[in-house]
Order: sequence, then C-alpha cells, then structure tokens
Amino acid sequence: MAKDKVHIFDTTLRDGEQVPGCKLDTSQKLIIAERLDELGVDVIEAGFPISSPGDFASVSEIAKLVRNATVCGLTRSVEKDIEVAAEAIKHARRPRIHTGIGTSDSHITHKFKSNREDILERAIAAVKYAKRFVEDVEFYAEDAGRTDNDYLARVCEAVIKAGATVLNIPDTTGYCLPEEYGAKMKYLKENVSGIDKAILSCHCHNDLGLATANSISGVINGARQIECTINGIGERAGNTSLEEVVMIMRQHPYLNLDTGINSKLLFDTSQMVSQKMGMPVQPNKAIVGTNAFAHSSGIHQDGVIKNRETYEIIDPADVGVSESSIVLTARSGRAALAFRAKNVGYELTKLQLDAVYQNFLKFADRKKEILDKDIHEIIETSAIDLKSLA
Amino acid sequence: MAKDKVHIFDTTLRDGEQVPGCKLDTSQKLIIAERLDELGVDVIEAGFPISSPGDFASVSEIAKLVRNATVCGLTRSVEKDIEVAAEAIKHARRPRIHTGIGTSDSHITHKFKSNREDILERAIAAVKYAKRFVEDVEFYAEDAGRTDNDYLARVCEAVIKAGATVLNIPDTTGYCLPEEYGAKMKYLKENVSGIDKAILSCHCHNDLGLATANSISGVINGARQIECTINGIGERAGNTSLEEVVMIMRQHPYLNLDTGINSKLLFDTSQMVSQKMGMPVQPNKAIVGTNAFAHSSGIHQDGVIKNRETYEIIDPADVGVSESSIVLTARSGRAALAFRAKNVGYELTKLQLDAVYQNFLKFADRKKEILDKDIHEIIETSAIDLKSLA
Repeated sequence: MAKDKVHIFDTTLRDGEQVPGCKLDTSQKLIIAERLDELGVDVIEAGFPISSPGDFASVSEIAKLVRNATVCGLTRSVEKDIEVAAEAIKHARRPRIHTGIGTSDSHITHKFKSNREDILERAIAAVKYAKRFVEDVEFYAEDAGRTDNDYLARVCEAVIKAGATVLNIPDTTGYCLPEEYGAKMKYLKENVSGIDKAILSCHCHNDLGLATANSISGVINGARQIECTINGIGERAGNTSLEEVVMIMRQHPYLNLDTGINSKLLFDTSQMVSQKMGMPVQPNKAIVGTNAFAHSSGIHQDGVIKNRETYEIIDPADVGVSESSIVLTARSGRAALAFRAKNVGYELTKLQLDAVYQNFLKFADRKKEILDKDIHEIIETSAIDLKSLA
Repeated sequence: MAKDKVHIFDTTLRDGEQVPGCKLDTSQKLIIAERLDELGVDVIEAGFPISSPGDFASVSEIAKLVRNATVCGLTRSVEKDIEVAAEAIKHARRPRIHTGIGTSDSHITHKFKSNREDILERAIAAVKYAKRFVEDVEFYAEDAGRTDNDYLARVCEAVIKAGATVLNIPDTTGYCLPEEYGAKMKYLKENVSGIDKAILSCHCHNDLGLATANSISGVINGARQIECTINGIGERAGNTSLEEVVMIMRQHPYLNLDTGINSKLLFDTSQMVSQKMGMPVQPNKAIVGTNAFAHSSGIHQDGVIKNRETYEIIDPADVGVSESSIVLTARSGRAALAFRAKNVGYELTKLQLDAVYQNFLKFADRKKEILDKDIHEIIETSAIDLKSLA
C-alpha cells in the first residue's frame, strides 16, 4: 500500500530563528535554505517579512534561490503585513503566504481586547486579502491548543471558504497532551465542512517536552503537514524536531505515513544549523546528538557487539552517522574491552582478558574515558605474558 | 479528590551516568544524591555495584548518606551481582535491589542464546535470591517495549509471586509510540493476576524523542512510578527527563496524578548536574534550558507583557527561574522595546517610540541581541527630542 505523504514545513529560518542569541544574517540563511531544499522539505518558512528590513531581504533572496520547496512568509492578519510578505516572496517558484490570528479566549481577550465574532471576520478578511496575491494561503489559528474546539471548527470552515489551502493548528504554549492534540485534529476532520479542500497542519511547541509526540498524534489523526525545525530550535523550549518526526514515521511503517526527507542528510544538516546559529545541540539529543549512537555501559555494549538491533532501532547510517561507537568507561564490560583491544591489535584469550579487565577497571575509575592509547598502557601494565599475545 | 501519587525513581547516578565523557567521582555523586533527596525523589538508583570498585564505593556511601529516599542498586539476574548490590546498600534506611533480565525475543535469542522458559526461571530465581537480602525488590523486564505482551504478563505474574514489589517495563530501545506503551501498561494491569501487589514502573529511552510522552502515557494507563534523570541525561539519546514529567502532571491537574517533587529546586538541580557531569543542557531544553522562559519575537513579547499566560503556561518561579526574560532582537516589536526602555529609565511617547523603533531595527539587524547599554545608544541616536523624555 502506498504511504500517505506528510508534508514537512520547515520553520528553522522563522520560528527557529526567534531565539535569543541566534540571529542569522542573510548569507547564512541562504546556505541553510539551500540545504533544506536538498534535504527534501516541502515548505521553507523563510521569515516574517514585515518584522525588519533584514528579514524582508532574507525572505526575498531565499525565494529567488530555492528550486523545489514552497517558500513561505509569515504575516499577522494585517493588510500591510500581507502586502510586504507578497512582495518578499514574489520571485518564489512556489510562493505561500502564512497568515492568521489568535483564536483562544486568552488571546482574544488579553492580546486583542476583542471578541470571537470580530476575530472570525478578521481571519476571513486576511485570507481573502492574501488570496489576491497568491493561490497558496495557509491560515494559523494561534493558540489553537487552548481554543475551544467548536469555535475553532467555525474559524476553520470560514477560512477554507475564503480560500485557505492549509490550516495550521498551533499548540502555541506547548500545553497539550498527545491524546488531546490528536483529538483536536480528529474533531476538525469530522466537524469542519469542506475540510478535504485543505491540509491540516501540526505546529507544536516543546514547553513540556511533548512537541514530537503531539505532532505524531496529529498526523495519526488526520493532519498531513508538520511544522518543525532542525534540532527543535525555537523560542522558549523550541519547536518540534524535524529529525525526530521524520524518523518516527520511518521506523513505524505500519503507520503508513512517510515524508520526502533524505534522512542521510539529517546529521550533517543538524551540525550545520547548530554551527551557523551558534546554538549547541546537547549530546543526548535524539537522532542528532553526538551520543545518540554511543554505547558505554557493559550490558549494552555486549548486546550491540553480538547484534546491533539488541539496543539500536535506527541504523546510524540512515541518518548520516558513520557508525555506532563503543566507548570505554568504568561501566564497560569485558566484551567491549575485547572489541576495542582487538581494534588496536590485541587478540586476548579469556584468561588474559580477565586479567586485563581488572587492570582496566582501576584505570577507568580514575579516567573519564579510555582512549585507544590508554589500551596499550593498560595491557602493558597488566599481569599477563605479553609475548603470548596475538 | 486526593491525587494518586506517582513515585519518582531517579536514575541520574546509574543510567544517567552511563554516558561517554561524563563519569562522576564518589564525592560528586554524594553531592548530587543529597540534592536529589532534598528535591523529593522517592528512589535514588545509586549505581550498578558489581560493575567496578568505584561504583560499589559510590553506592555504599550514598546508602549511608541519604535520609528520605529509597536507595537502589542495579544487578543482572546473577547471584554474585545480587550479593554485591546487597552489600553496597546494606546501610540504607530504605534499601532496594533492582534485578532483571531481557525478555524480548531479540534479547533472548541474540544476547542470551536462550529460550523463554529458561529466561522465566532465571527471572524468578533472581527475585527470590534478592528477597533473601531485602524486602523491596524491583524487577526489570529488559526490552519490554519489544516483548510480546502475553509472555511479558507471564513473567510479571511469576516475579510478583516470587516477591517483586515493583515491575519495571523498560522501552529499552526507545522504540514505542505513546499509545503502544500505554496499551502495554493497560494490558498488564488487566491481565496479570496479583498486579495490585506491585507497582508498575515506566522506564523510557529517548531515541525517537518520545520518552516523556511514553512515560506519561504509562501513568495514565496505571503505572505509578517513572524512572527518569535530571536533564534527561543517559546513554545514547538519554532517559525520560524528570523535570518534564513532573511539570506535565502539575500542569494537568485533571489527570489526578502528582509527585512529591519540590519543583522550585528543578532549575538549580539541573544546573548542578550539568556542571558536575560536564554535560551541557541545550538552551531550548524544556523546563530547564536557559531559553525556556525567554521571549524574543515581537508577537510573543507583546502578548507576555499584556498577560503572562498568553504565551507561558508555567510560572517560571514554580521551577526556580527568577523571571521570564524579554530579549530584544530584530524580531522584537514596539511593546518589548518600550518595556525594556522603561526598565532603563526612558518613558517614550507613542511618537517617540515609533522613531526609536526604526533606529532600533537597524541596530538589531546588525547585532544578535540588544543589551541595556545599547538601548541608551539607540535612543541617543534616534531622531527625537531627548529633552522631552521623562
């Protein structure tokens, strides 16, 4: 059975860039945009053109550069924003305007000091105005995660009628649990008339560490686009991690969902974005952290040496990592020591290994990590007959 | 209604410590253990005593030090391991032995070159042997995430009969989706006779970014212990993040689940563990990242200045962060600029703000972040009458 395609909407250069300490200049953004295009993302959200002259220039240059992906610019539900975004993306092969407004009572009351009917009118007007400039108009219902489902469905229905091609349902504060977020998508799928004319999109934030799970729950329940960033970068605790949702779908084929991402470029793209933004990726980051495929405990190493799949579900090569590493620490066992000793030229018998291992543990309790050069020293200072070594 | 208590089993010093490049010495482990006790964790897994003399010493010292939490030592289903662990924890006020064996076909076939009946016998024997030394025996069914539910239920039933007080159901490879992992817990709750005599425990790994969601799905479906680490540290992509699961339960009161954690110590504990381990926490880490409560985009800042709850679900003070920060970048709007200008002594009128804002954007497009000292320069070089400023 052919898998359903889930579109990957990358917002590294817009929502991802909104991070204290990580402003990219236009030339760096162009390099990242080119790489995202090569990676196979379906949409690149290039910026928020009205926000500053620099951002306008970046969106405009990216629109000219990108060959395959749709290039998208963000706006509020404000005519001037939409005009400026339309101007910025006018050279894109596939332009999209992303407009919208807050729909939760919290946003309507505190941010807009308005009411539901007025907000609905402004949403419709914004989509209609954007349609004057481009065919492809995505609408976001900001804080949809805390928006009453019934009102949200009314807004969705109205903007589809106004011409919206994609409906973005953001969990702006990162509040939802996966079941809730999935149920919201299901509700919209079942209660919005004309829903098949638009694609539902997941846009999740990671304030409680649930952005990935929420997005996956969204696509299981009918959404067909995920908005995400490389390394999960983004304001506060960040956005959904592109690399995580892509690999979850690939590792769970029974979901019958897939993306167009060339996963072999994931690790390298992660490193590139981290370096250009100056934003570190923690070693234990899923998929792209430097330790993601490193085994240091004895029980795990023994298992991996016998059969990779004992502890690894992803072949590191599939995400562009050259091999899983067997790291020697005081938590390592005999199997790992024998494996690494063999790599540097020693074939130890079982008895030799026992003696070397006792010596190794003393070294390893003192040192954080045992390197190849230490192995020579450990073997030479062990109580074994060196001449008998292969 | 009184909330059900979910026990927090912290394994920062065992599963968390199994990380390339981050071996702690005994004195550092004691400081962390004391803090974990103060934080209110229910169980501290202090180490794997048989693995090295250094680890034995750490577990032994921690057992003597800790006042409130249960202190637990890990073992394989091997008599010698259990004897050594029992010796290491003998001075604990509340000692626990954590023993177990791989139960998935992958582990049984490749790692143990054995069969299901033999593994079942070894599991029972290990629990019985551990019960000779302590009352509180936790059993782990390694790779339970990929273990057939029917066989897993048989193993659980048998070890409860043998005296296990806690059943750890690890998703060792981080493969499960939340629905699956929750369904596994539900299956065990419904199909294991005697299940009410033991506590089901979630032990999830983050290889696909789902450890937090899986653990929450586990407790929603009947588990009452979560095994986790500070900062989600651990082998490969790490373990479930303690701070995330604790705050999810606290932020979703309708789940009727809570822990005994003093959340105000979370940020400081995160920093302490990161520094002692030498393992960085990425800025966009949920709850404890340095950007977790930082707002830099104009739309968000405007909302937060009007009402914190527009974009923040957690009061930063609840996790020990002193305040949410309004960071000025080229993505910031007038509201944020006015807010920060006021903080450093300038009360701008609307017209003054417009002029200063245009000047600010030019500065901000060049600089990554605008500091207080830059605000003075920006205002002084703007086309406004400085004398009219309040």
